[in-house]
Order: sequence, then C-alpha cells, then structure tokens
Amino acid sequence: MSLIENLNWRHAVKAYDPTKKVSNENIDKIVEAVRLAPTSSGLQPFKLIVVENQEIKDKMAAGSLNPECMTECSHVLIFAAWDNYTAERIDKVYDYTTDVRELPRGRFDSYTDKLKSIYLNEPAEANYAHAAKQTYIALGLALAQAAELKVHSTPVEGFDNKVIDTVLELEKYGLKSVSLMYVGVADPSRDWVGAMKKVRIPKEELVIEFK
Amino acid sequence: MSLIENLNWRHAVKAYDPTKKVSNENIDKIVEAVRLAPTSSGLQPFKLIVVENQEIKDKMAAGSLNPECMTECSHVLIFAAWDNYTAERIDKVYDYTTDVRELPRGRFDSYTDKLKSIYLNEPAEANYAHAAKQTYIALGLALAQAAELKVHSTPVEGFDNKVIDTVLELEKYGLKSVSLMYVGVADPSRDWVGAMKKVRIPKEELVIEFK
Repeated sequence: MSLIENLNWRHAVKAYDPTKKVSNENIDKIVEAVRLAPTSSGLQPFKLIVVENQEIKDKMAAGSLNPECMTECSHVLIFAAWDNYTAERIDKVYDYTTDVRELPRGRFDSYTDKLKSIYLNEPAEANYAHAAKQTYIALGLALAQAAELKVHSTPVEGFDNKVIDTVLELEKYGLKSVSLMYVGVADPSRDWVGAMKKVRIPKEELVIEFK
Repeated sequence: MSLIENLNWRHAVKAYDPTKKVSNENIDKIVEAVRLAPTSSGLQPFKLIVVENQEIKDKMAAGSLNPECMTECSHVLIFAAWDNYTAERIDKVYDYTTDVRELPRGRFDSYTDKLKSIYLNEPAEANYAHAAKQTYIALGLALAQAAELKVHSTPVEGFDNKVIDTVLELEKYGLKSVSLMYVGVADPSRDWVGAMKKVRIPKEELVIEFK
C-alpha cells in the first residue's frame, strides 16, 4: 500500500484491547522508521523510550489525559528530546559520522563550529524547543510505519510532562518528554473514532500556490 | 517499496538540476500526504505554500542559507503555521468536521470549549510555537512521500523567516513560516551528500527499553 493509502487507513485510536500485544518485529520496524527520520543537521537530538512494562505504564497513566489507553495499549513510545545542545553531544554525533564514513575525525569541524556558535549561545529552553520540533518528524514517520504494518496507534500531547519525566527518570539522561505514541490493537467496541469518517480540510483550504 | 526502504533511499539533496521539473502529479501526491498528516486535536493549524514561480523563488533566495538550491530546485514548499489559535479558527475546523460527518454543528462544543480555554489564555507566540510543531509531522510525511515517488528533496531550517514571510506576504493570511522543503531533481555532479553513506546513530543509542 502507498503512504497515502496508509495515512487514510490510520486514525487516532481511542481505546485498546488490553489482551492483545504488538509483535516485537513490528515494534522494531516502528523504531527503525524513527531512527531513519531526518533531523536538523543530522543531530538526532532525542531518544525513543519504548515501554511494554505494565507497572511503568500504570505509573505513567497518572499523567495522561487518556489513562485507559495508556494502561491498555500494547506499547507506549515516548519521544524525549535533549534538554540542551552541548559541544559534547554535537561532537559525539559527528565523530560517529566521520567514523562510519571512514573520514578523519574533525572533517566537519567548520560545520560543527558553526552549529556550536549558534546553539551554545542560546538558552537551554530554546535548544530543547528546537530539539523537540525534530521529534515531530520522527513521530509522523512512526505513525506512518505503524499504519503500513496495520498496527493501531495514537499520537499524544497534552499529558503531564513532569509525571512522565519523573517515572522514566529522564533527567538523568538529559532528556525531557515531548510526545507519546500508544501502539496496540484497537478495541472496536470502544474506539468510537474508528467508525467515523476521516476529516481533513480540502486541498483548496490547505494550499496557496504561486505558479 | 516500504517506508523504511524509502527513508533509506532519500537524503537531503545539496544541489538541483535547474533544467528539470517535478510533475504536477507528483507535487499533488506530496501535498496529499501533508493534507493527511495528523495534527493536535485535528486542527491542521498551518498552510502549505507551493512555489514554482521563478521570480518568487529568486526573491526568497535572499533569505536562504543555500540560495542555489532555492533558485534551482523545481518547487519550494513552505510550511507556514497559524500565528495564533483563535475561536474563529477552531470553530471553522469543527464546523467543517461536523458537516462532513453529517452531525449537528456544535456536536463537539464541549471539546472545542476545552481547547479554547487552553489556547485563548496563551500568548500568540506560545500558540504559534505549538502550531509550528505540528508542521514537522507533515514535513516528515512530505519527505517520505517524495521518497516513495523517487523525487529528490531537502528539508530546510535556518533561513531568514522575515524574508520568506515578507516575500510571500504571510502576515495577511495570519501565518508565519516554519520550515521549507526543496523538491526537484538532484544534480549528481554537485550533490556531494548523495555519494556518501547515510549515517544514523545505532538503535542501541536511540532506544531506552522498559520490557
């Protein structure tokens, strides 16, 4: 199926069947789509937390607007962005890049110096906000990958970040939660959105063209 | 090809062949992927500006870090987010939603009242920042759709938003530019990234698991 067909297939599931699990193979493919997501300057400034553990899901549910989805879905993915850009983090990525490409370390110094001159002069909050935006690219691709696999999912904002960050101890990794994605098997008897027509604004409303 | 194969195929193109154009059919498919992108509360709080016009591309190039890409690519897509959430904008989306679903208008009032109680109490800048994040979901899907079509593309930040906003007169639409996407046919003789190995951090670096 094409990406467009897959995007038409998916919807934000409102209720999951707690007796059904998503296979490790399918979770791995969703993770791989996240890993391949493009990010600003290739820094991949985030981590993906994959939670299958019921106890941790139950604890996180206290910070969720839809606690039943959190506890009943198969896996919860948490997109957690770097709390700041630092010279060490930037260098680590580019050292790895030069190693993989069999180039001398420092080959991209002029570029990373430019990145550092920008980011290291910004407050941590602004750098986190920039890193957080990159996670949305990955979130979109994760949702598309789930749809390709006919795995149900829900993108989630509007949760209590402090609860999630505390339960997952994200501060010790230098991370802050941005968004969640529930993954599982929908319960059609309670997933009221699944029966409704998908709505998107018409193309004419979305697009402004300069031919 | 699968999404993962398509993501492995793509890269951020650094030089385009100015003599080659992308078909309208392929641009339409990229637009459709953007239109189908999920967004917070389904508000789709952005517009997509599609610029094929050479004169406008040339003017926008003054605000670009890679002006040759801007002028030589086939089409420039600009993701431009709402400058604020307003009651009118929220109602317009939900009136359309109820109309399409053949439900009485106001069916989602309790939900839209909640959205308004959140957004209308936030400063415009915070609401723009939230809307801007949603555009990154669409950007990711647009890049994936281009890759599915074997159309070359480049996601772009780090441009001068004021130049882009002024050239496109975005203020009159209540919009502010967020990101760009160049679309075209790469010039392999100048697109130095195309010859290099794709680098992403290993899965073990990206993922934290709670089994």
